[in-house]
Amino acid sequence: MGGTARGPTIGVFDSGFGGLTVLRELLPLIPGAHYVYLGDTARLPYGSKSRETIVRYAVSSARFLEERGAELLVVACNTATALALDELRAALTIPVIGVIAPGAEAAATCGGDAPPGDVLVLATQATVESHAYARACAALGLWAIEKACPLLVPLVEEGWIGEGQIGAARGTWDAGRGTWNAAMSAVTAEVLRIYLGEALRDAPRSRTLLLGCTHYPLLRPAIARTLDELGRSLRVIDSAQATARSVARALGVEGDGVAAGPGLATCEFFATDSVEKFERLGSRFLGRPVRGVQLVDLGG
Amino acid sequence: MGGTARGPTIGVFDSGFGGLTVLRELLPLIPGAHYVYLGDTARLPYGSKSRETIVRYAVSSARFLEERGAELLVVACNTATALALDELRAALTIPVIGVIAPGAEAAATCGGDAPPGDVLVLATQATVESHAYARACAALGLWAIEKACPLLVPLVEEGWIGEGQIGAARGTWDAGRGTWNAAMSAVTAEVLRIYLGEALRDAPRSRTLLLGCTHYPLLRPAIARTLDELGRSLRVIDSAQATARSVARALGVEGDGVAAGPGLATCEFFATDSVEKFERLGSRFLGRPVRGVQLVDLGG
Repeated sequence: MGGTARGPTIGVFDSGFGGLTVLRELLPLIPGAHYVYLGDTARLPYGSKSRETIVRYAVSSARFLEERGAELLVVACNTATALALDELRAALTIPVIGVIAPGAEAAATCGGDAPPGDVLVLATQATVESHAYARACAALGLWAIEKACPLLVPLVEEGWIGEGQIGAARGTWDAGRGTWNAAMSAVTAEVLRIYLGEALRDAPRSRTLLLGCTHYPLLRPAIARTLDELGRSLRVIDSAQATARSVARALGVEGDGVAAGPGLATCEFFATDSVEKFERLGSRFLGRPVRGVQLVDLGG
Repeated sequence: MGGTARGPTIGVFDSGFGGLTVLRELLPLIPGAHYVYLGDTARLPYGSKSRETIVRYAVSSARFLEERGAELLVVACNTATALALDELRAALTIPVIGVIAPGAEAAATCGGDAPPGDVLVLATQATVESHAYARACAALGLWAIEKACPLLVPLVEEGWIGEGQIGAARGTWDAGRGTWNAAMSAVTAEVLRIYLGEALRDAPRSRTLLLGCTHYPLLRPAIARTLDELGRSLRVIDSAQATARSVARALGVEGDGVAAGPGLATCEFFATDSVEKFERLGSRFLGRPVRGVQLVDLGG
């Protein structure tokens, strides 16, 4: 774990909260770093918007993090990676790592010696239309089927993420409302049945399911149940871990980060909209309390 | 219909497409007008964002329409009306009409001589938290129960708006997919059952349901079916018609607009994100083709 007196400053950027699932993987792997995280919450979601708009938003967000001292930028947002990675690299002077190439690599290697088969990618409308995953998978010799799932982000942000987790995430809020919990889970399950049913009909030979949006890891248990119901056995992978490993490699701190413990990292959080909402929702994605979020105006 | 040689220029503003349901009511009522419509699609949705951000977005959007010659501004967005009406009136030199006061008036008078009972308002998170509807209803002697329904806007934008309408809106897209249509309708029905079930439990004496978001009129048939299922008989009203009548009154053209026919009005459309998407989704809200949309950059 790098013998420097002071660890690197790593910028992590997302349109909102989802990128915190990537930060969550970075913290134990590179615990000596200082993290500056920006959620561009005043302009989210990116996934339903056009390339031109996404590029404009992503570049202004990334420049903010570079100005805050980031020595490396993690684009912890699939949509921004899919549509703006080249523009971000051109606009910044620091290294930029996205989530799509690491995700595709994880898909290619997750089965060990077993061939990965076709890869089914669930993602936002904009990510699907960019075909960034199909291209990244093809570069590794894999064929990808891409499926847009526009309702999954709102369902996650509403906290309708499956029976077990809703109770945990909402604390005592729904203690007396068992029936609503079950009904909310039923809605999410039905939406997943529709999306996965449509996608798997077009991808009968896929053996790997790649979660191409940083919101989707929170739906992992519900997705696993739906696959069971549909009688399909697919390896489910998300790019958060793979991206964190790419960052560690780029910084030359690969391998023994965990031994150093997760407690040393320091974090600054910035959001372009309500800091209260960021602290409340963000904690769910990071898996620990998010505190001291600072409001920033990017001129939106 | 106003004897002027040239009709007024009316600005209509929404965060996206929903305001087109208000324009749809304005066209036959004030057919001699020229309409300039702005959908701030690069920054939607407003309904999940903070007051400060909504005010900033609404004021910049409204100023654009004033610069384009609007002589009166219709804030055809419940969230912007709820959180930014005073700021809009302060920032502009032209009259500003929102959707909330007309909606509350419609709730107060829709039953004729029968008392309207309590009013149940369905709206976005931001509108509910502002309590703008409760205040507007209280001013008319009515008690309002406000219920946030964050998933309804994404469901409408996905086109999952009930069996009958999906087929109509999506044309041949789903002709061979009867089962998916039914499944999508089932999702929307279940979401409505959850929201309306929760709301009606808190509002046992309500007899009027006010649709406090301009997306919701597209769910009207599904909402009526859900109320039937729940065994509740409520008058369902939306503020689009009432708002159009307020505008006609303000312009002194009340009453005989319809006789002049809907064909004379001219419209210019502006959007801050993809014009293709605006034309595609917008036609569904306006009920007629939307063409010639122009892209505008408000600096977001």
